[in-house]
Amino acid sequence: MIRQNERLGNQRRPMKLTVDINKYAEGSVYIEVGDTKVLCTATVEEKVPPFMKGQGKGWVTAEYSMLPRATHTRNQRESARGKLTGRTMEIQRLIGRALRSVINLQALGERTVIIDCDVIQADGGTRTTSITGAFVALAIAVNKLSQKHNLSVFPITDYLASVSVGVVGEELLLDLNYEEDSKAKVDMNVVMTGEGKFVEVQGTGEESPFSRDELNGLLELAQQGIHEMIAQQQEILGPIALKIGSGQSGQGV
Amino acid sequence: MIRQNERLGNQRRPMKLTVDINKYAEGSVYIEVGDTKVLCTATVEEKVPPFMKGQGKGWVTAEYSMLPRATHTRNQRESARGKLTGRTMEIQRLIGRALRSVINLQALGERTVIIDCDVIQADGGTRTTSITGAFVALAIAVNKLSQKHNLSVFPITDYLASVSVGVVGEELLLDLNYEEDSKAKVDMNVVMTGEGKFVEVQGTGEESPFSRDELNGLLELAQQGIHEMIAQQQEILGPIALKIGSGQSGQGV
Amino acid sequence: MIRQNERLGNQRRPMKLTVDINKYAEGSVYIEVGDTKVLCTATVEEKVPPFMKGQGKGWVTAEYSMLPRATHTRNQRESARGKLTGRTMEIQRLIGRALRSVINLQALGERTVIIDCDVIQADGGTRTTSITGAFVALAIAVNKLSQKHNLSVFPITDYLASVSVGVVGEELLLDLNYEEDSKAKVDMNVVMTGEGKFVEVQGTGEESPFSRDELNGLLELAQQGIHEMIAQQQEILGPIALKIGSGQSGQGV
Amino acid sequence: MIRQNERLGNQRRPMKLTVDINKYAEGSVYIEVGDTKVLCTATVEEKVPPFMKGQGKGWVTAEYSMLPRATHTRNQRESARGKLTGRTMEIQRLIGRALRSVINLQALGERTVIIDCDVIQADGGTRTTSITGAFVALAIAVNKLSQKHNLSVFPITDYLASVSVGVVGEELLLDLNYEEDSKAKVDMNVVMTGEGKFVEVQGTGEESPFSRDELNGLLELAQQGIHEMIAQQQEILGPIALKIGSGQSGQGV
Amino acid sequence: MIRQNERLGNQRRPMKLTVDINKYAEGSVYIEVGDTKVLCTATVEEKVPPFMKGQGKGWVTAEYSMLPRATHTRNQRESARGKLTGRTMEIQRLIGRALRSVINLQALGERTVIIDCDVIQADGGTRTTSITGAFVALAIAVNKLSQKHNLSVFPITDYLASVSVGVVGEELLLDLNYEEDSKAKVDMNVVMTGEGKFVEVQGTGEESPFSRDELNGLLELAQQGIHEMIAQQQEILGPIALKIGSGQSGQGV
Amino acid sequence: MIRQNERLGNQRRPMKLTVDINKYAEGSVYIEVGDTKVLCTATVEEKVPPFMKGQGKGWVTAEYSMLPRATHTRNQRESARGKLTGRTMEIQRLIGRALRSVINLQALGERTVIIDCDVIQADGGTRTTSITGAFVALAIAVNKLSQKHNLSVFPITDYLASVSVGVVGEELLLDLNYEEDSKAKVDMNVVMTGEGKFVEVQGTGEESPFSRDELNGLLELAQQGIHEMIAQQQEILGPIALKIGSGQSGQGV
Repeated sequence: MIRQNERLGNQRRPMKLTVDINKYAEGSVYIEVGDTKVLCTATVEEKVPPFMKGQGKGWVTAEYSMLPRATHTRNQRESARGKLTGRTMEIQRLIGRALRSVINLQALGERTVIIDCDVIQADGGTRTTSITGAFVALAIAVNKLSQKHNLSVFPITDYLASVSVGVVGEELLLDLNYEEDSKAKVDMNVVMTGEGKFVEVQGTGEESPFSRDELNGLLELAQQGIHEMIAQQQEILGPIALKIGSGQSGQGV
Repeated sequence: MIRQNERLGNQRRPMKLTVDINKYAEGSVYIEVGDTKVLCTATVEEKVPPFMKGQGKGWVTAEYSMLPRATHTRNQRESARGKLTGRTMEIQRLIGRALRSVINLQALGERTVIIDCDVIQADGGTRTTSITGAFVALAIAVNKLSQKHNLSVFPITDYLASVSVGVVGEELLLDLNYEEDSKAKVDMNVVMTGEGKFVEVQGTGEESPFSRDELNGLLELAQQGIHEMIAQQQEILGPIALKIGSGQSGQGV
Repeated sequence: MIRQNERLGNQRRPMKLTVDINKYAEGSVYIEVGDTKVLCTATVEEKVPPFMKGQGKGWVTAEYSMLPRATHTRNQRESARGKLTGRTMEIQRLIGRALRSVINLQALGERTVIIDCDVIQADGGTRTTSITGAFVALAIAVNKLSQKHNLSVFPITDYLASVSVGVVGEELLLDLNYEEDSKAKVDMNVVMTGEGKFVEVQGTGEESPFSRDELNGLLELAQQGIHEMIAQQQEILGPIALKIGSGQSGQGV
Repeated sequence: MIRQNERLGNQRRPMKLTVDINKYAEGSVYIEVGDTKVLCTATVEEKVPPFMKGQGKGWVTAEYSMLPRATHTRNQRESARGKLTGRTMEIQRLIGRALRSVINLQALGERTVIIDCDVIQADGGTRTTSITGAFVALAIAVNKLSQKHNLSVFPITDYLASVSVGVVGEELLLDLNYEEDSKAKVDMNVVMTGEGKFVEVQGTGEESPFSRDELNGLLELAQQGIHEMIAQQQEILGPIALKIGSGQSGQGV
Repeated sequence: MIRQNERLGNQRRPMKLTVDINKYAEGSVYIEVGDTKVLCTATVEEKVPPFMKGQGKGWVTAEYSMLPRATHTRNQRESARGKLTGRTMEIQRLIGRALRSVINLQALGERTVIIDCDVIQADGGTRTTSITGAFVALAIAVNKLSQKHNLSVFPITDYLASVSVGVVGEELLLDLNYEEDSKAKVDMNVVMTGEGKFVEVQGTGEESPFSRDELNGLLELAQQGIHEMIAQQQEILGPIALKIGSGQSGQGV
Repeated sequence: MIRQNERLGNQRRPMKLTVDINKYAEGSVYIEVGDTKVLCTATVEEKVPPFMKGQGKGWVTAEYSMLPRATHTRNQRESARGKLTGRTMEIQRLIGRALRSVINLQALGERTVIIDCDVIQADGGTRTTSITGAFVALAIAVNKLSQKHNLSVFPITDYLASVSVGVVGEELLLDLNYEEDSKAKVDMNVVMTGEGKFVEVQGTGEESPFSRDELNGLLELAQQGIHEMIAQQQEILGPIALKIGSGQSGQGV
């Protein structure tokens, strides 16, 4: 099977990270994975949600949205509909959960970091791209926070990135674009840490149930893709990269 | 680790299925898995949602809700809040998707089967219990439909059941109750077919990322548990069981 | 006129009360009146709504809902519609008002008891059945509360039950089922106390206005039916029954 | 007990009806009962709601609202809250039901009459005043309709008016104002026809259950009050009055 | 062009102000401009909205609504739709902003005055009529407040009135009624103070852009009309009129 | 007064237009005016809203939204709040109205063009910048449409751009940034055509009413600014520019 742009089955689309593209946000990144483009901003608020109050711990949460014309045909705005779709809720719960798996909430102090992922253009993999970008925005914001408040432990414990994999026809593919995704029998989103552990594995065979072998093959593709993505995150984060997972204080840089 | 009621790590809670407990619904079952109790009804409507019209195919969808006092403390009704929570949406999307994986929508004809899963009492695993019960209610309703309309192919292609597994401390456990679930580092819901294939694998390590070995161990536990559950489904369905996946016409019984 | 199951005009359907069917709720009862089945749970919260704060008094309120397939055809969930129907609001206001008429709010202390009435199956009279069941769940919860907090006066001042009556054709009927209700020219719901006083009388002649004589006949039927229902409540409540309306402290049992 | 303005227990407040106060509505009346003031307009639409389509019958419905400063302290608008209160729903359902009891829906043809009752100032009895006024607006609109379409049978079958009665202290009172209403132990709204039959009887003893004797006394007071109100309706309606319940064609006038 | 009632292009419709028509509100006026009729009530609350707390200043805000049958055909209630239309929001923001331009919020103290403008009948110019009436209701309420709390400075700094102007065909018209408004190429609402300054100028040429000359002509018409309206406001306000803009204490009268 | 970046009072911020930045939309432009950045996309749909059906005419409408972190502090999403703010509604109504003033709806045919204006970063003037960008996106989409359907008359009749002006201290300023806007006594948004006519003039003196002289000065500043902006629009549109207002067929290019 020949993929668009002559990609091989185990080849990701080019990924580009542009940081600090918003003059107000504590952290921001514009992430492009092929034609999927997401703007991620991190906002730090000096308070926590009611259910977290008084525990001396912080919170990390995420919101996700697509611009109405991010897709082939225009989608109605959720603000005009008056409510979020199930898909949006599912995705933003996933992003928040994934980010919290690499945050030391104690070290963060009673603060909330809100990551907004707004999809400017969608061509498959918007949720995984959002997670990969959100991590970078989070790291930049937490680094500023860490310096400003002189935190004794840097609150980010590991890297985090995500990719989709799937079965199209008989082939296992890494990083599906929209066209591939819409033909996939099996679709799986995988989130992993820099250490190579799984944070989320969400595989769905609505069109056709899948075997243990297929599952194993998909996990291997994802693992390889995420490894490469984390290398790019390290490069763009530069000196901040050294603090992640170090357990050291967040000073310097 | 000693589990409640001296269960072993790989031991399920007792499961009880009581069918035809609603005098109006086309199919109904009351499923009890330990202290988790769910009422599942199947409603057949002779129409399909707008996005499916004119394709000569049917649709299967699900709704999920918890009674306000299904839990330790009372939850506000979603009808009073004016909207569904993200958790509810996520669960009902999952149930619907899982059921559709074992339905031949073509064979169903332009009809919708709506499965309502109402949790009467919750003690962990409400979404997996809902799926296991929903399948039985669906099978009963589809069997009636199949006889009434003399369908040439029985529309259910395979069995379907679901269980949760997780890591508590260092142990891998099958079928977590509420108390175990709230202590779990890793939590995974698995949906499988009678043929032993995966329909959904949703593993989350919010508290702590998990290794490939842990993932493998959890999948094995789930596989064993689901195998047992499907045997119970077959027993309760009696003669309907023979039609499932047979590709034969739905007559008889 | 011959009624279903050969009932006479002044004959109620069989009523069955099963208590303590929920392991979390402070009080619970499953009430069946013919094929109408309602699950009532009572929840005690150690706070009162804002408009009652600081008065040293408690509050009793109720919520009512029907499962989507409690009826012949499936009803859309109110949570999916995003709002309660007028019918639901009317019914839950009625239940709450009725229960408060036999509660000494002062004796209750600054606490709220919320009664949830969820209709599992509907065959006429769901609102009156809910009231009759709600009273039992309330009594059980208040008894626990009374013992736990050693209340000096038992807060329930009298029994409470409810039944529907109506005019079908020329006949006055007690306890209408769905089929009768849909043919009734006059429909009346009556709530009464153990002492035989009226708490609510709601008679409607949308199809045809009714005379004073008809009104009198209906009230007599209701009075008789409620008298019988209260005897059943007393039996199921056992030793709690003695405390109701005694004005004594709630200790013992 | 001495009532405001030296009213006796069985004495109504002065009632004033001013018709045709809206230049667009098919029927309109401004009704004042003491300091309670309600603007009622009737709108005729040449269609029926979906559930009535194709039956060759019409529909009558009502909406009720209070201006924010109709009361001692300002109430938030329901449009700003985003939903109707239970009280509003209950009242508008009551008004619609009551009006339909004196309408021949067949004779109306496939049309809807919507009565809007907007409370300009509230001093007790807004729902009963709304019904009394709504009937007049309805009669005017139906008369116009009847002439315009040359209906063969005048669709209004009888008069309709409503009043509140209650028990304050030991006394039975007719037509309670706000102050009396807030002290009442028993509160009852009665709707009757010109022929003296009951359309709605809604009695509530939230503060204190009431006896059969009290119920009888209240019904007598209501009967007398409504009798007087209907005489005033007849006077203001003039020639239209003759057609009501005549079963004759609606021509003339 | 001959206008209805033989009005000239620069002639306003007759305006009538009736004050104190609500027995509860701190200030109230019924304003009629031709067939446009608006009920304005002013409510004083001894608190300010959250965003104004602790600044020692007050707030003035407005709400606007049309009765469903204020217009030729009936409009659905915004309470039934569950949300305000954009038009309503725009108008009530405009009214509030305009009123605040002539209020000394410091002198008002930490209080809110809410002006409710409810359109009883609409024949063009409902927003401008609302502003002109709202000012009078505000002045009456502020005068009472000023006397009650012995304010050292009277908080209203100038008069305020508003009128619409427009271009119909080639003619510039003052105070458009509904029919003229629906034919207008250019539509402008102007709000001015007693001193002759502009508070709001909102001109729209959706049908056809307009020239600087047309703009100038319209402003002149508006200026003249508002001048006349303010004279009527002064007359109806009587002794209160002397305090407006005087900077004196609000005592006396 | 010295403005940021040494701007003079009558000097605009640099404006940059980047076209075709969305691969799906029929027309798109990224407009930057100083630090205010708006993404405008135009979507063509082959249908019109219900109120326009069957008239042989098209429709143009707009939606406006700000990303949550477009501003100094994060704003809650309107989708999460469940409704649009009054400010958003006001702005999107303004944009739609302004665009329609330069469209020949007849020539467009029964089609809708929806312009989405999403503010990526806000530094004052987001509504005026949206209009200026929306016009360019509209022109590109209409040009494609015109070629594809071979329209006999090019539907855009004139250019359209918008700028804000205001009074800060004693000075009249063109194109206010956020800081200036928050200090302005008078704030005016002006929309004009290529021919130099006014489409919208919205001036507000909430802080302080303004004189006729000030109004005149502000209009002159706006006129000059818009003249310059339209020149930039012409340049970026290239050959499309020639068709605008030509009344010629839309072929070629």
